[in-house]
Amino acid sequence: MSFDPTSLTYDEAGLLPCIAQEVETGEVLMLAWMNAAAVARTLETGRVTYWSRSRQAFWVKGETSGHVQELVELRVDCDRDCLLALVRQAGPACHTGRRSCFYTAVRDGDEVEIMAPEA
Amino acid sequence: MSFDPTSLTYDEAGLLPCIAQEVETGEVLMLAWMNAAAVARTLETGRVTYWSRSRQAFWVKGETSGHVQELVELRVDCDRDCLLALVRQAGPACHTGRRSCFYTAVRDGDEVEIMAPEA
Repeated sequence: MSFDPTSLTYDEAGLLPCIAQEVETGEVLMLAWMNAAAVARTLETGRVTYWSRSRQAFWVKGETSGHVQELVELRVDCDRDCLLALVRQAGPACHTGRRSCFYTAVRDGDEVEIMAPEA
Repeated sequence: MSFDPTSLTYDEAGLLPCIAQEVETGEVLMLAWMNAAAVARTLETGRVTYWSRSRQAFWVKGETSGHVQELVELRVDCDRDCLLALVRQAGPACHTGRRSCFYTAVRDGDEVEIMAPEA
């Protein structure tokens, strides 16, 4: 079946969440949002492209920082309201300079930083 | 720093997305939603507990099916508006009987099923 980005289920703002996972290591890097046009651009260009809710604009990941996400494969979930992007991440995915945005763990009721910014 | 579920950033509906990842294999299993009380219950019980948007009720994953998610570690992202739950998943995570909800890949413009329901 041919894939049509407009066939996905978007929220009231026309967005759905997309999880980025590093294809080699399986590490979950980040979650951001896409509209149908961002999904289409991601597939057309092979560069993961989100929709920035704060800027209300396309967000080609790494366009400014160089920390691009090369799309390896896009996957759709059973409810068609969430995406998983398998990527090759150049440099850190997080704007704090860490490999992943999920660098804070909850351990014994406390927040623990488990990942330092890359050099 | 002590972790307080109410310190997270929730959307207008009081929810945030939580990604469940199998801790041993790194496989991304599903994404569902939590409110602050569901986050607290997940940590207290060690059983991943979402908020069902369709039923408007707590959803203790696997309570009916037996396909529970044992929490290994909860992680918070940099914006504090998304969670990553590292879990041990009993049986399939997806209601379709598949290990993961992300069983559809987009390949060469087509949707391809890459995972069969478990026996």
